[in-house]
Amino acid sequence: MAAGRARTVLLTGSNRGIGLELVKQLLGAPRPPAWIFATCRDPEGPRAQELRDLASKHPNVVLVKLDVANPSAITDAAKIVEGKLNGMGLNLLINNAGIYTPAASLETVDAEEMIRTYKTNAVGPMLMAQAFLPLLKKAARESTEKGLSCSKAAIINISTIMGSIEKTSESFCKPVISYRCSKAALNMLTKCQALTYGEAGILCVALHPGWVKTDMGSQEADLTVDTSVRGLLSVLPILSEKHSGTLLNWEGKAIPW
Amino acid sequence: MAAGRARTVLLTGSNRGIGLELVKQLLGAPRPPAWIFATCRDPEGPRAQELRDLASKHPNVVLVKLDVANPSAITDAAKIVEGKLNGMGLNLLINNAGIYTPAASLETVDAEEMIRTYKTNAVGPMLMAQAFLPLLKKAARESTEKGLSCSKAAIINISTIMGSIEKTSESFCKPVISYRCSKAALNMLTKCQALTYGEAGILCVALHPGWVKTDMGSQEADLTVDTSVRGLLSVLPILSEKHSGTLLNWEGKAIPW
Ligand SMILES: NC(=O)c1ccc[n+]([C@@H]2O[C@H](COP(=O)([O-])OP(=O)(O)OC[C@H]3O[C@@H](n4cnc5c(N)ncnc54)[C@H](OP(=O)(O)O)[C@@H]3O)[C@@H](O)[C@H]2O)c1
Ligand SMILES: NC(=O)c1ccc[n+]([C@@H]2O[C@H](COP(=O)([O-])OP(=O)(O)OC[C@H]3O[C@@H](n4cnc5c(N)ncnc54)[C@H](OP(=O)(O)O)[C@@H]3O)[C@@H](O)[C@H]2O)c1
Repeated sequence: MAAGRARTVLLTGSNRGIGLELVKQLLGAPRPPAWIFATCRDPEGPRAQELRDLASKHPNVVLVKLDVANPSAITDAAKIVEGKLNGMGLNLLINNAGIYTPAASLETVDAEEMIRTYKTNAVGPMLMAQAFLPLLKKAARESTEKGLSCSKAAIINISTIMGSIEKTSESFCKPVISYRCSKAALNMLTKCQALTYGEAGILCVALHPGWVKTDMGSQEADLTVDTSVRGLLSVLPILSEKHSGTLLNWEGKAIPW
Repeated sequence: MAAGRARTVLLTGSNRGIGLELVKQLLGAPRPPAWIFATCRDPEGPRAQELRDLASKHPNVVLVKLDVANPSAITDAAKIVEGKLNGMGLNLLINNAGIYTPAASLETVDAEEMIRTYKTNAVGPMLMAQAFLPLLKKAARESTEKGLSCSKAAIINISTIMGSIEKTSESFCKPVISYRCSKAALNMLTKCQALTYGEAGILCVALHPGWVKTDMGSQEADLTVDTSVRGLLSVLPILSEKHSGTLLNWEGKAIPW
């Protein structure tokens, strides 16, 4: 049931953390995708060694260079992926890449940090959806499924409970202003994408992976990356039109805005 | 009761629209503020003629040049205001300046437009609060009032119902993605400001002025600028700690995130 049986999947930030684990578990599923476009900033660099090892063992993994903070890199990557797909559509786009500055409180944060984080966490996912829209639409058109689903065509934005304004006071021991503002904007983007792309048959959902032991989440976090990703991948197949434009956690529970 | 009897008030974008009307109605109140710092991008230019006329008639109006998208202009303005206040604090900071790009749908919006709008609508208010924090704190310290209020020390962020993720579908005939994302971030900022600055005695609230007949709202809008600003100014005196970190409309009604 992994990824709701999406045949073609693209992920950003797939060289480490949650992105890398998503690639691993997608590959380990009973029916792995026909193509996994595992994108990252520096596929030749030392931080992509594990991903390169995976790709060398699994011919369905395609490494693509993609910096989500660079608009022209996004359109370049879309051309490469289109070529590889060779007429097929893209079922699932997972906007996973993100940055987090632990020290950014209202006392310390500046304009540059606010904009840098917004660029990667909110503008990047917007540009990704724009660039891959023709391929997502193609997948939706060519599907015989009714309604919306991850096996037909979907955009999954990896967001966070820290982007929930309603829940802010519960986690404000870490103010992380630049991150919170960027993810609240990403949540708004997800709602707008759901309202815009729903007609074309594309599901749009924001997912909170939990607090996860990665470089970002630190080793103090609640969940192993294995548990979080298992959760996320078990949520994907249950998503339908009623979830489009919502924020859910790794167990499928709704989070208020 | 205008502005909850704030003795010193600073506004951004006060040369036209809602900002200019706020200055006018503050001046027309039974007990007008001792100082109104009416800031705008170009106080010498043709678009500030009406504001200059007001200032020439009312010695308590001080025109200050301030572009909220320019971090150093903000700190420069704070120095000028501090000098003028000559030991007094600032009771009320109204972050009113904002931009809106009607044509920005998911089809048309690009990275530049997203960032330009975020800079003015979300980062600007954040930097304004940082720069004027010492003066707001001074006002809070020197007040004998208990709790939080606009007459003691407050930051009012002029937001919009279009920044409410929950309410997006009701107004999505105008997608305005860059604006919505920036204002969702501003709402998050307001919540974070309330949680950070509450201890120092500073109230932080986001206000939606309604759909108002200004250059931004167009002449098709629901409310005259007079009605909207009368509403906003009647909400300020009722605000207390229980409202800090919320989004209210010009009639004082809560709007969900
Ligand atoms: N970990 C948690 O507790 C937690 C909680 C809530 C939400 N999340 C969200 O989950 C997602 C993944 O987080 P994680 O914990 O796996 O973080 P991580 O371990 O720090 O990994 C972040 C990934 O994003 C990539 N990335 C950063 N900027 C990029 C850019 N401009 N272009 C392309 N890739 C970029 C990184 O690549 P490089 O190696 O090139 O830097 C890396 O692959 C993020 O969106 C995060 O906000 C995480
Ligand atoms: N009108 C509505 O229906 C409506 C609805 C909801 C919320 N709002 C909010 O209400 C606020 C005021 O809107 P309005 O209707 O009065 O808009 P407006 O008529 O377009 O006026 C906008 C004001 O903001 C100023 N401004 C823009 N960018 C600035 C910058 N970088 N630095 C300093 N000032 C800047 C403008 O100055 P210049 O003359 O120099 O351009 C002008 O004074 C905005 O925050 C807006 O989002 C309005």
